Amino acid sequence: MTDIAMIRAAAERLQGHARRTPLLSSPFLDRISGRRVLVKPECLQHTGSFKYRGGRSAVSALDPDTRARGVLAYSSGNHAQGVARAAAEFGTSAVIVMPSDAPELKIANTRAEGAEVVLYDRAAGESREELGARLERDRGLTLIKPYDEPQVIAGQGTCGLEIAQQARAEGIEEAEVLVCCGGGGLSAGIALALEAEAPKMRVCTVEPVGFDDAARSLVSGRRERNETQAGGLCDAILTPMPGEITFPIMQRLCGPGLVVSDDDALRAMAEAFRRLKLVAEPGGAVALAAALFHASELDSDTVICTISGGNVDAGTFGRALKTYG
Amino acid sequence: MTDIAMIRAAAERLQGHARRTPLLSSPFLDRISGRRVLVKPECLQHTGSFKYRGGRSAVSALDPDTRARGVLAYSSGNHAQGVARAAAEFGTSAVIVMPSDAPELKIANTRAEGAEVVLYDRAAGESREELGARLERDRGLTLIKPYDEPQVIAGQGTCGLEIAQQARAEGIEEAEVLVCCGGGGLSAGIALALEAEAPKMRVCTVEPVGFDDAARSLVSGRRERNETQAGGLCDAILTPMPGEITFPIMQRLCGPGLVVSDDDALRAMAEAFRRLKLVAEPGGAVALAAALFHASELDSDTVICTISGGNVDAGTFGRALKTYG
Repeated sequence: MTDIAMIRAAAERLQGHARRTPLLSSPFLDRISGRRVLVKPECLQHTGSFKYRGGRSAVSALDPDTRARGVLAYSSGNHAQGVARAAAEFGTSAVIVMPSDAPELKIANTRAEGAEVVLYDRAAGESREELGARLERDRGLTLIKPYDEPQVIAGQGTCGLEIAQQARAEGIEEAEVLVCCGGGGLSAGIALALEAEAPKMRVCTVEPVGFDDAARSLVSGRRERNETQAGGLCDAILTPMPGEITFPIMQRLCGPGLVVSDDDALRAMAEAFRRLKLVAEPGGAVALAAALFHASELDSDTVICTISGGNVDAGTFGRALKTYG
Repeated sequence: MTDIAMIRAAAERLQGHARRTPLLSSPFLDRISGRRVLVKPECLQHTGSFKYRGGRSAVSALDPDTRARGVLAYSSGNHAQGVARAAAEFGTSAVIVMPSDAPELKIANTRAEGAEVVLYDRAAGESREELGARLERDRGLTLIKPYDEPQVIAGQGTCGLEIAQQARAEGIEEAEVLVCCGGGGLSAGIALALEAEAPKMRVCTVEPVGFDDAARSLVSGRRERNETQAGGLCDAILTPMPGEITFPIMQRLCGPGLVVSDDDALRAMAEAFRRLKLVAEPGGAVALAAALFHASELDSDTVICTISGGNVDAGTFGRALKTYG
């Protein structure tokens, strides 16, 4: 099970590979939120999202013989790119199972990272887990799950170590830390890191309307499922329910869960463009959206929010700018 | 006259204020250029461009009584915001003379930084220098020139100190350093810093077609003037000619000057969006454009390019994405 020692070990393995993303701010964002807003832009991470941390952590933790046989991942795009890049860095092969309705940019980038992409139809109810298990069995690949995998959670937790260190350097001990939440790997990892390194900070998950499984699960105390699993704007964080491994960590350390609309996400993308000069994807912008447009639901003087990824098609980004730019 | 000691002193004054921007890369950009491409994203600097460095350097170097009477700047936008923010941080007033055709975002942001904005008509041949001199005299303000000011050049030079340190950490000693060039403050500042800290690196200026005064001046050995001074896409770097103070430094240390088309700049903006998740403005993208699309004019295995600013209207950015995204 992931713990702080495992996160620190992951940070050592990632040293010199993962980018230490900065902690950014803008007085304009502070004004909108009515408090200090700090932004951790994981869109600047290699492959354009925090997923490289978990991918590199997991691939680097494999024993060399296992790693040499290749790895497998199923992902709507960001985990795919993270695992593909990590595999390529270790000179091994990667097979990625992706939904056929994933953004073109993510599919193209995953291929460009040298991975073999296998598409499945998310809307038709095909199970990526079953498809993945078959490929694992038939081709001797090792599955790197997107969030229910201790070494992946440990890798995402390195983002939390950085948040704790960077906030401390700014004299900040207390804060709400808003994390864009799909299966909960980043939320759980950051929460574990902060529990050890910045115990007065608390992770609140942020999700889009209609895909608020984490928020509902944190209320009910059991893993709640979303009714639909496709079609939303925030493709990066549309998962069926919180993970089996991530949820107990989230239940102990995170909450409440915040929920924002797709329009909030688009507005936040426009603010990230205007004020931070960053490209955020919709699912990567929900935490900033909560910080800016759900300020009344926040308690603390300082809010730290992840921009978890920036892998967005030009069309969708243009839509955010056209509507809110 | 600006020298390395002055740049180091500026770096001390900027410590804890200016952002140490990261040095970014993408294997996709390396592939386009056919060499290693490193990007120094000054669009992530406070106020969205490197100009905050020079503004804060100059304002912080004033004696307190002078500073308390207020400062004055003339600028198409980025220097305006940099000086306005620096003045606000010191609790003093700033009057900014801006061309009436400057991007709306820049005018609005300069006002939002608390400055008083005075507009002039660039196309009608009004001289911002004369207007500035009158305001300086009548209101007791201290003029902070955009590039022909030793403490401004010293501030921009701190970007060069960081490039030298960050490149060394990556094991890089030799490189062509491509710098987006208007009046030459950033080019001269970086060149002076590299002369001391990374003498095997060489600054090449990059300008848009039609506004290639630096490139022509570096060839002829005297300050050449542009025929037109307005109307170009790359508003941030449209200056009449290289500076009186900056040009001798550039002549000794920089060149050759590279020239790219407006379309190259738009394409580079799209690549910065796609591969780096960064928002670059047209004038801030010309160095990346040279690195990617003028590769045959480069010699070295490694090219380091500044993205000097990201203050671009949604419409112009949308145009880059629509055409090349």
